[in-house]
Amino acid sequence: MTRPQADKGDGRKVSPTRLKVLQVAANLFADRGYSGVGVNEISEATGLGRGALYYHISSKEDLLYDITTAYMSDLITDGRAIADAETDPVERVRALSRALMMTISEHLSEMTVCFRELHALTDERRRAVTGLHSDYQAIWAMALADGLTKGVFKPTPSVVLKGLLGMYFYSFLWLTPRGPQNAADIGNAFADVVLNSVRK
Amino acid sequence: MTRPQADKGDGRKVSPTRLKVLQVAANLFADRGYSGVGVNEISEATGLGRGALYYHISSKEDLLYDITTAYMSDLITDGRAIADAETDPVERVRALSRALMMTISEHLSEMTVCFRELHALTDERRRAVTGLHSDYQAIWAMALADGLTKGVFKPTPSVVLKGLLGMYFYSFLWLTPRGPQNAADIGNAFADVVLNSVRK
Repeated sequence: MTRPQADKGDGRKVSPTRLKVLQVAANLFADRGYSGVGVNEISEATGLGRGALYYHISSKEDLLYDITTAYMSDLITDGRAIADAETDPVERVRALSRALMMTISEHLSEMTVCFRELHALTDERRRAVTGLHSDYQAIWAMALADGLTKGVFKPTPSVVLKGLLGMYFYSFLWLTPRGPQNAADIGNAFADVVLNSVRK
Repeated sequence: MTRPQADKGDGRKVSPTRLKVLQVAANLFADRGYSGVGVNEISEATGLGRGALYYHISSKEDLLYDITTAYMSDLITDGRAIADAETDPVERVRALSRALMMTISEHLSEMTVCFRELHALTDERRRAVTGLHSDYQAIWAMALADGLTKGVFKPTPSVVLKGLLGMYFYSFLWLTPRGPQNAADIGNAFADVVLNSVRK
């Protein structure tokens, strides 16, 4: 799932340098907190001068916003591709599950920053991040609804879907990217939890 | 589950005033971040003078530590009581599930502070909080092991137990204490998710 994004979805191109800046800033913010990291430190850690850095970012809050939305945008893009490609409801849940765990595993710093520093964003941007989370949840809700239509799944209350997705999202707190189980294995194990709950 | 704690487990008495200070500070920290709240504001919000406040707390970090450990201590006390009282594995899981959701629902500010400000604690205290989480997870692990011994449950990989507990803990991000479903109902729904996964 880690890949250079040619396009942010809004038509804005993302350069490899900008991607590097986002990654470096995410690691710094995750380690020491958003308010504890200055633009100078990001400049030093990226090896870009202050002028060159400001060519790639417009403000520190802009950077925070892009970090908190990067992994959700990945999830939504991947989730929609899976929904288009997988017509079998069970296989769709399995593919969504693996893709989700792999994205979380590759974006642990971004997720830490997102959960911890969301309150540093302006209201409008906070709402935008919440909106992305809802868009992602809708992809799962449609997968479950499709399985219901096809007679494979039983109805799932929305609070249970929220809980099941929380099982994945909370993993950023205990997951070690090079731990004993890889993300795809955990994704398969969690898919069984979901399927045991939603299957008829 | 909300009740004055006569004893913190280490023999130290917790007065009603101290409990009020903890609650007020948790709400302030959750709203505006630990580093953004001064002792003066806690003094004002509690209606205690600075001198009276320092009679009940020794430092701001001491307060943060007590806030981050308060709900886990509750969970562990309740969990052990349930383990002693419920010998039926299925009913034990249901009771643990309801108690967990009720405690989370009553400690949303504390959980927000715990997840967001844990890095503000010294290493030793951070390890103590992590230790409490492990103690709590052990209560569930023993419930599942007991069900396995009694032939009711199948073996559950520890990564699945971590995932299932994450389903509960993540709820602090979407739960509204006075939302359409009360905490006990959600606890019952989540117990079904767990039982669907662990039952033979």
